[in-house]
Amino acid sequence: MPTQRAATGPHVLRAMNAGAVLAALRATDAPAASVSALAAATGLSRPAVTRALAALAEDGLVETVTAAPEAAAPGRPAQHVRFRAEAGHVAGVDIGPHKVLVVIADLAGGARAERRVTVGQDVDGPGLFETVRTALTAAVAEAGLAPADLRAVSVGTPGIVDRERGEILVAPSIPGWAGLPVVPRLREWLHCPVLIDNDVDLAVLGERWRGGSGDADSLVFVQWGERIGAGMLLDGRPFRGAGGAAGELGFIDVPSGDVPSDRVGDAASAGPLTSALGPFERFAGAGAIRRLAEEAGVALGPDGEIGPLFAAAAAGDPAAVAVVDRAADRFARGLATLLLLVDPGRVVIGGGLSRAGETLLGPVRRHLRDRTLTGAEVTASALGERAVAVGALRRALDVVEPTLIASA
Amino acid sequence: MPTQRAATGPHVLRAMNAGAVLAALRATDAPAASVSALAAATGLSRPAVTRALAALAEDGLVETVTAAPEAAAPGRPAQHVRFRAEAGHVAGVDIGPHKVLVVIADLAGGARAERRVTVGQDVDGPGLFETVRTALTAAVAEAGLAPADLRAVSVGTPGIVDRERGEILVAPSIPGWAGLPVVPRLREWLHCPVLIDNDVDLAVLGERWRGGSGDADSLVFVQWGERIGAGMLLDGRPFRGAGGAAGELGFIDVPSGDVPSDRVGDAASAGPLTSALGPFERFAGAGAIRRLAEEAGVALGPDGEIGPLFAAAAAGDPAAVAVVDRAADRFARGLATLLLLVDPGRVVIGGGLSRAGETLLGPVRRHLRDRTLTGAEVTASALGERAVAVGALRRALDVVEPTLIASA
Repeated sequence: MPTQRAATGPHVLRAMNAGAVLAALRATDAPAASVSALAAATGLSRPAVTRALAALAEDGLVETVTAAPEAAAPGRPAQHVRFRAEAGHVAGVDIGPHKVLVVIADLAGGARAERRVTVGQDVDGPGLFETVRTALTAAVAEAGLAPADLRAVSVGTPGIVDRERGEILVAPSIPGWAGLPVVPRLREWLHCPVLIDNDVDLAVLGERWRGGSGDADSLVFVQWGERIGAGMLLDGRPFRGAGGAAGELGFIDVPSGDVPSDRVGDAASAGPLTSALGPFERFAGAGAIRRLAEEAGVALGPDGEIGPLFAAAAAGDPAAVAVVDRAADRFARGLATLLLLVDPGRVVIGGGLSRAGETLLGPVRRHLRDRTLTGAEVTASALGERAVAVGALRRALDVVEPTLIASA
Repeated sequence: MPTQRAATGPHVLRAMNAGAVLAALRATDAPAASVSALAAATGLSRPAVTRALAALAEDGLVETVTAAPEAAAPGRPAQHVRFRAEAGHVAGVDIGPHKVLVVIADLAGGARAERRVTVGQDVDGPGLFETVRTALTAAVAEAGLAPADLRAVSVGTPGIVDRERGEILVAPSIPGWAGLPVVPRLREWLHCPVLIDNDVDLAVLGERWRGGSGDADSLVFVQWGERIGAGMLLDGRPFRGAGGAAGELGFIDVPSGDVPSDRVGDAASAGPLTSALGPFERFAGAGAIRRLAEEAGVALGPDGEIGPLFAAAAAGDPAAVAVVDRAADRFARGLATLLLLVDPGRVVIGGGLSRAGETLLGPVRRHLRDRTLTGAEVTASALGERAVAVGALRRALDVVEPTLIASA
């Protein structure tokens, strides 16, 4: 590693001190901190901390508050300061073929507004873009802001994304979505940094940040709904592949029969990957499980809602238990492949099917056992449907945080 | 990134200068370099370069030679120095179920001796260890050295390896090999650093170093012989997975039939992964291809040698062409899965079957086309059977190089 050249000069020092004080303040669990506490946390002198706080106050990033009650002592009340998380806002946007979810958060990542819009069956690219615009406008208004107030917007979308150029390269699940200049159009409208990533690549960041998965160095998020895809964090870094196309679990093909591979005559494959759903999605996605339930005569909810299947299985209904077991068996075939090739150690299952929890994940773990060489911890997402949007917030904050200290 | 504390003091400076001069000398394409050239390359003064060279000569790492002819000018011949690559040696060892290959190299990575020993069908762990010892002894002797002269030994083995503890955790292809204290026993005997890695994890390092694959940031080496496995370099770093078990391509299961997955009734899988070969190895490994050839009446060589199949296909024999096409189709099913999940951009195929070259890889590329979303460059290994041993040499040199400068 090359030795870094030390930057010098009083303005650099002031900015470094302001940065250190801000970091210490944000790291505090308490809602506010005293100058003494910040001096102790940063190693700076009290006068240096006071100067740094003045610069941060000028940027609107901190403000003085009355001392927290437990800190109150006889005599003059101690000066405390708090981080003004409300000084800026970011948006995390999850764009999918079935819904658009927008979350507005403050600089501490606290959600201030949320807007979910269901997307119709036959939506096309331009229509989806308008839905995103409408949802963003509504969410921003709900937070008491204007779109121009946002400091950064991070967008997650299905498909393969050119993150540098802000383009969607391949998106089989949404007709007319690939090639659409989503990021340039959002930038034109919002006048702030706009980032785009594959949705599950954001979900794994969300799980790492807020999902309670601890600080595992490697973590894979598997989206399991109508679509199936994997976002990967390997050796502490997001892994997207050479062309941004890693983790396309929904497009792999797995054996479907009960006969070992080498006893079946082989021939042509199922054909090019051009349909909206990939082979593994057609085999183990929500639609396939719905069909298994229907074939077995297990009742589903209105509009084919799949929840009643898992409720019946949890209650011990033999037909429902058998369907869930077959669904778990199917899913385990793809997940085992991922574990054999990537060995992440830890897998978080998200997407609509993860709501079934242990009723489904228990059988999945059982069916994994004989198909892998080493194990992996498999848990359900704690963030549920919000994982992508939460990861998007994390990405947006990563962009905004280094720019916070302006005047210092 | 934390700012590094600058190490100071004259001895540190001397060691840094010696290191810089040695690096500049080793980076020269010519067999020797002048003091002026080294001063220009390092930015050091001529007296500083001269002092550094004296220290390096004391360690036996450089020596003065007569000026290279093209550099000779009228008057006193210019002083040139060369790196004494022969000042130290390392060994790279490829241990497999069918062969042990030992390569001895000097400090420049130049091969000085090589020994290949075929391993019998029914070898067990202890027997294999003795074969390794015998091959190492013979190769070292051929290089005119004693085992104690080696500065580092790097070993590649099939299976899942605990690199820190030097243990083989899982090795289905060699009975009695897992759990054997291979590294401690070699250290006891050799008194030098001994490293152990999964064999294909070393092969990918070898391909990156000497395989002519350029400086691709991501590269996957796929071993295709009786066994099938993948070694990965992702985003510039070796990727082995959380438990060292990534890349177990031979143990995945792929569809074998000609019917799309979702039209076949599913049921139990092929059972636990306990046999010596994994499902994909049984489906697309050398043994499976041999059986395809036999069924089609295509002649093989003595002992089932597979080369004649590819020679016949290259000559246009229709039965052989059809078998090769089926072999390529089978292999492409697993490779497509790897590409969909990892998207490495670049794949090098090694192992015995890679010797078939374009006769086999052409059909593989064709069968890949409809099974992936983005492509990958697929080429045959330039190192062939030596890829693992060459990667092992690279690992051994990585350990030795930082320790070269002792007295400076």
